[in-house]
Amino acid sequence: MTTTTDTPRRSRQAPALLLESLKTRFGSACSTGESVCNQHGRDESPYPTMAPDAVVFAQSTQDVVDAINLCAAHKVPVIPYGAGSSIEGHVLAIHGGITIDVSKMNKVLALDVDDLTCTVQAGVTRMQLNQEIRSSGLFFPIDPGADASVGGMAATRASGTNAVRYGTMRDNVIALTVVTADGKVITTAGRSKKSSTGYDLTRLFVGSEGTLGLIVEVTVRLYPLPEAVSAAVCTFADVESAVNTVIQSIQLGVPIARAEMLDGLTVHAINRYSKTSLAEQPMLFLEFHGTPASVKEQAQIVQEVATGNGGENFEWAINPEDRTRLWNARHHAFFACLQLKPGSRAFTTDACVPISKLAECIAETAQDVKSSSLPAPIFGHVGDGNFHCVIVADPEIPDEMVEAERLNQRVMQRALRIGGTCSGEHGVGLHKMELLFEEHGDDVMDLMRRVKLAFDPDNIMNPGKLVSV
Amino acid sequence: MTTTTDTPRRSRQAPALLLESLKTRFGSACSTGESVCNQHGRDESPYPTMAPDAVVFAQSTQDVVDAINLCAAHKVPVIPYGAGSSIEGHVLAIHGGITIDVSKMNKVLALDVDDLTCTVQAGVTRMQLNQEIRSSGLFFPIDPGADASVGGMAATRASGTNAVRYGTMRDNVIALTVVTADGKVITTAGRSKKSSTGYDLTRLFVGSEGTLGLIVEVTVRLYPLPEAVSAAVCTFADVESAVNTVIQSIQLGVPIARAEMLDGLTVHAINRYSKTSLAEQPMLFLEFHGTPASVKEQAQIVQEVATGNGGENFEWAINPEDRTRLWNARHHAFFACLQLKPGSRAFTTDACVPISKLAECIAETAQDVKSSSLPAPIFGHVGDGNFHCVIVADPEIPDEMVEAERLNQRVMQRALRIGGTCSGEHGVGLHKMELLFEEHGDDVMDLMRRVKLAFDPDNIMNPGKLVSV
Repeated sequence: MTTTTDTPRRSRQAPALLLESLKTRFGSACSTGESVCNQHGRDESPYPTMAPDAVVFAQSTQDVVDAINLCAAHKVPVIPYGAGSSIEGHVLAIHGGITIDVSKMNKVLALDVDDLTCTVQAGVTRMQLNQEIRSSGLFFPIDPGADASVGGMAATRASGTNAVRYGTMRDNVIALTVVTADGKVITTAGRSKKSSTGYDLTRLFVGSEGTLGLIVEVTVRLYPLPEAVSAAVCTFADVESAVNTVIQSIQLGVPIARAEMLDGLTVHAINRYSKTSLAEQPMLFLEFHGTPASVKEQAQIVQEVATGNGGENFEWAINPEDRTRLWNARHHAFFACLQLKPGSRAFTTDACVPISKLAECIAETAQDVKSSSLPAPIFGHVGDGNFHCVIVADPEIPDEMVEAERLNQRVMQRALRIGGTCSGEHGVGLHKMELLFEEHGDDVMDLMRRVKLAFDPDNIMNPGKLVSV
Repeated sequence: MTTTTDTPRRSRQAPALLLESLKTRFGSACSTGESVCNQHGRDESPYPTMAPDAVVFAQSTQDVVDAINLCAAHKVPVIPYGAGSSIEGHVLAIHGGITIDVSKMNKVLALDVDDLTCTVQAGVTRMQLNQEIRSSGLFFPIDPGADASVGGMAATRASGTNAVRYGTMRDNVIALTVVTADGKVITTAGRSKKSSTGYDLTRLFVGSEGTLGLIVEVTVRLYPLPEAVSAAVCTFADVESAVNTVIQSIQLGVPIARAEMLDGLTVHAINRYSKTSLAEQPMLFLEFHGTPASVKEQAQIVQEVATGNGGENFEWAINPEDRTRLWNARHHAFFACLQLKPGSRAFTTDACVPISKLAECIAETAQDVKSSSLPAPIFGHVGDGNFHCVIVADPEIPDEMVEAERLNQRVMQRALRIGGTCSGEHGVGLHKMELLFEEHGDDVMDLMRRVKLAFDPDNIMNPGKLVSV
């Protein structure tokens, strides 16, 4: 965690005059209370709390504009906050400043069933969205573990278990409305499915982690609910066999909807946390979407591939309740792993590598974990080449934190060595800023710095995250 | 074509000293011959030739670096040239300068069958790529009408008939190697399928039309050749019924691989050009990819939807030769339309709208065409909401050019009014720079200008295209 240690902290606190102006403008929607500020100064990352000087609860785009304009006048940092479910320290006020909480901007603004699109305010969460559009026959597939806000998911280029078939936020955001560092409200694109009119600002803001502007509205792609869905679990002797089953299926062109690998320790953690009784050995959770006939055919092909890799104990979850139980258990994997050592925090590695290297990469990581003193379950979205090794450590025990960081670094360095990335879906935040230089090189980081300064010359938008200027 | 008229032309010609340095460095690979320069100063757009001062035929990334460094020292424009198949004037040397022709950088550098990726030099064309990887069992789906270079396709965010299922260049470029305005060679990403590490420079260069840097290598996604393919044509009483068939099929979740609508005049032009004997009325060309069973099922569903919309005369093309004949005819539609008035040039409108508005948008455009003196066949990728109205006009007859531009403006304005874009896949080039302000607004264009200046402060990279600074 060298980046935060090296970074000057709380160097740009809000002056009293700014706090007064915010109070005047926002009344009780601006809080300087210690508990509110502390709550907004931490997320699911292993970092200690770094509270902002105040929190503004925005109810509208105009609220965001006014808050940013006031901060900009004082060159005070602006930190966006959605659901607080980052695991990379995105919301920490490392330089001080004002947090803009958009969780109350939680309206579904437009559902266009015929176009398969939907526009939401940034604070709408993924589960809320799917709840609200349920009767339309459509769904929004992107599902990080937490019930994240759609704005936060766009800001971190999130994905999840469905990405192997439906893509990530990169692929599923059609347009964004963003408030820029100079208080302008811009919309990056229209509602057509594709466009070739100029620089792809949509994709530039997706994954920009609040450093280029604050996302207030998101137009996303929706998909018809599949006519038939079928899910299955299947056990394997080792993680490589599980991983190879998925990769070979993809190479055969099977449009798998979900393909999650969990190692034995993850399954153990899930059984304890979610009261399931799954066999505690390497396992695949699979799901197929399509017509009844095509789902049956996909499942048959994958089952054959699995059997060829020694897969056993195929169990099918055909009815919706069983499937929901299964995927809820999977989505709670991160919190289940945390409970392996109550009171601990997690270093959630997020390596993503070319799929041909994935089995080898996970096997080597498993060896690292075996020789470590810390529990570190491994699971992930193997169809995308992305896996998480959740290293669980007690923040009160310095040796554990050092060991956790050592393991974490080994996983990330390994991913980079074989042409992968140190973050498949969680973002850079505080934790990976230095690694970015290794991954991309100085010249690419120089271009990123130029983009940052072009959009935010005073460095007020979530400063000290993603790229330093 | 007001943009070019307003733009100062040939204001930044190469000084003799630069031409001498280029000759010294590149020898016969640098040409100042009139025919070579003229050939590089035009494309498939309706604009008159604007020749560069010299053409450098690059054979390597180092050649590109050296050429750009020499131009940068004199602040002379650099214009990338691939296959010259732009229809928006991208390659015209409107300010003078040096064209870097990368067509000899045409090697497939790495084919990673297990990862479903391939890295090519920018000058490799889409047909060459598919030819070279044929034995791998994989294919590259993006197919603009012309046999464009992969570098040019990335630079213009191209798509084509397969985009409805496989996405556009936006979705299928994994990484780019680019030479920047200051002569640095950068690679935007590793080879993993997804990443959340920083600003998405890959997507920023995709569609940047040579204005931010010169693309020298492209890593693309490949797909397993489908086990079964089936194509069909089907006629309709009107274009709306054809369009609605595709849209309803997509809303039902059918993963159509290709769905092209052609109006009667387009079919007439194709019959003349490609010696086919298709019924000269509104028509769909359809293709389905998958397992034999799923292809059969998809085709059945779509045939039912088509019948519900009055579709008739379903003809199946099951064997590869028939399919190839069909799609070759479709890919030659642009050239077939040009032959409706030999010696003419085409204004190829490229509107892309939300699919719910497409039938209405095409119907209104057909009314415009009906009342015009110019032939203007309509066809397009209706599954994406994207269609082309190819307005054929004689550049020697001023009235025709004025009428062509009037029609063109009406189509584009209509697309913008209903939430669409003035270019679905051809790019901005010279022709749409002013429309970009209408489409995106001044504040968005200000951000684009900032990006341009951040990457290319001396405005040497394809100046006067996409965004003016």
